[in-house]
Amino acid sequence: MRSLVSENAVRRLPKYLRALKHLEESGAVRVSSAELGKLVGMTPSQIRQDLSSFGEFGIQGYGYNVTDLSQQIEIIMGTDRGHRAILVGCGGLGRSLIQNFSFEEQGVQLVAAFDMCEDLIGTKMNGVPVYSAKTLPEFLSCHEIDMAVLAVPKRSAKSVANQLIEYGIRAFWNFTNEDVISPYSDILVENVHFSDSLLSLSYYMAEKTDYETRMLHRMNKIAVVS
Amino acid sequence: MRSLVSENAVRRLPKYLRALKHLEESGAVRVSSAELGKLVGMTPSQIRQDLSSFGEFGIQGYGYNVTDLSQQIEIIMGTDRGHRAILVGCGGLGRSLIQNFSFEEQGVQLVAAFDMCEDLIGTKMNGVPVYSAKTLPEFLSCHEIDMAVLAVPKRSAKSVANQLIEYGIRAFWNFTNEDVISPYSDILVENVHFSDSLLSLSYYMAEKTDYETRMLHRMNKIAVVS
Repeated sequence: MRSLVSENAVRRLPKYLRALKHLEESGAVRVSSAELGKLVGMTPSQIRQDLSSFGEFGIQGYGYNVTDLSQQIEIIMGTDRGHRAILVGCGGLGRSLIQNFSFEEQGVQLVAAFDMCEDLIGTKMNGVPVYSAKTLPEFLSCHEIDMAVLAVPKRSAKSVANQLIEYGIRAFWNFTNEDVISPYSDILVENVHFSDSLLSLSYYMAEKTDYETRMLHRMNKIAVVS
Repeated sequence: MRSLVSENAVRRLPKYLRALKHLEESGAVRVSSAELGKLVGMTPSQIRQDLSSFGEFGIQGYGYNVTDLSQQIEIIMGTDRGHRAILVGCGGLGRSLIQNFSFEEQGVQLVAAFDMCEDLIGTKMNGVPVYSAKTLPEFLSCHEIDMAVLAVPKRSAKSVANQLIEYGIRAFWNFTNEDVISPYSDILVENVHFSDSLLSLSYYMAEKTDYETRMLHRMNKIAVVS
């Protein structure tokens, strides 16, 4: 199946949600698309167009009720579905996610973590029990799990992902910096590619430097001429 | 300044680069846009269009030379600019980045890390010295730094970012899950919003479930009728 809604619109929803939460915290009751646009760096018409992909929100001349829109976006994003997750790989990054990332706030229940390291097995991290990776097939046959957070080393990413698919996992939040699944399979994979993100920043830094260099040259030329 | 190239095209480049590196490792010398497209889940014409935003690559009927294209994309992404970075906040996530993420591979040199915790100050993590956050102004006045990796707790994200801007930092790789800079300023900010990523996955999971439920209903109806 292919989503009917543009991926860009889906990916902007969490940004709107964050802005709405800020507004809510600051006591705002309603917001216009112009105000919301300013907060997220978009035009009012982009905001209206994005939201219209998901339903009808807002009232002409009034704008949006902050709390209503925020709740509706949460429902659209599935935070009320009670998604249950496991995390595989409790090294530096996995541990940091368990200890610092608020899964609950995104409507996801992190029910267990898995690792190969004997020292970690049997412990709890931030209330989440750590089990032996060997017990994964057994665990997954007894528990309904919707998603696996993949935080294993890059070299074992593909094999672990394939095993998890065999055991019935159909959605991955993938931190391994390895493309684990063919883009044509029906498995959902959300990649957090740190390197892609850093490369994009690097691109914009280079572009900005080039632009500033060009501007400087042009200004020098003008100075020489005048 | 506004980029002349679509953000989506910029963000797809690292994906192409990863596919090209895989091809290189497997010994491939040339690749067609159709083959590259298959690897990254895009059509050949999308690939050609994306690449044409950055210059002329490839030869009609031959495709692309894998190593050439890979090197050219790296140059476009600024990996040869010698960008120098500091990391601020050596808690779980910061530490995990220093220890596991290969900055060098993306052409970025991580020269120092900063924290408030006395136990960490004066130590080295993966060869990177950890200094007191109090020494940041002094450090930044003596060293040319292009980018700050922001891994401080969410609550101090904005104040730390503002201080760093005062000390001359113009680009941030932001892991704080807080929008630290107004989208209208000329400061470059690349956000790694874990929650946005998880919410997008949650959306697609919900959408898939709804789709499967609808299909099931439709099949049941057909079964009843026939």
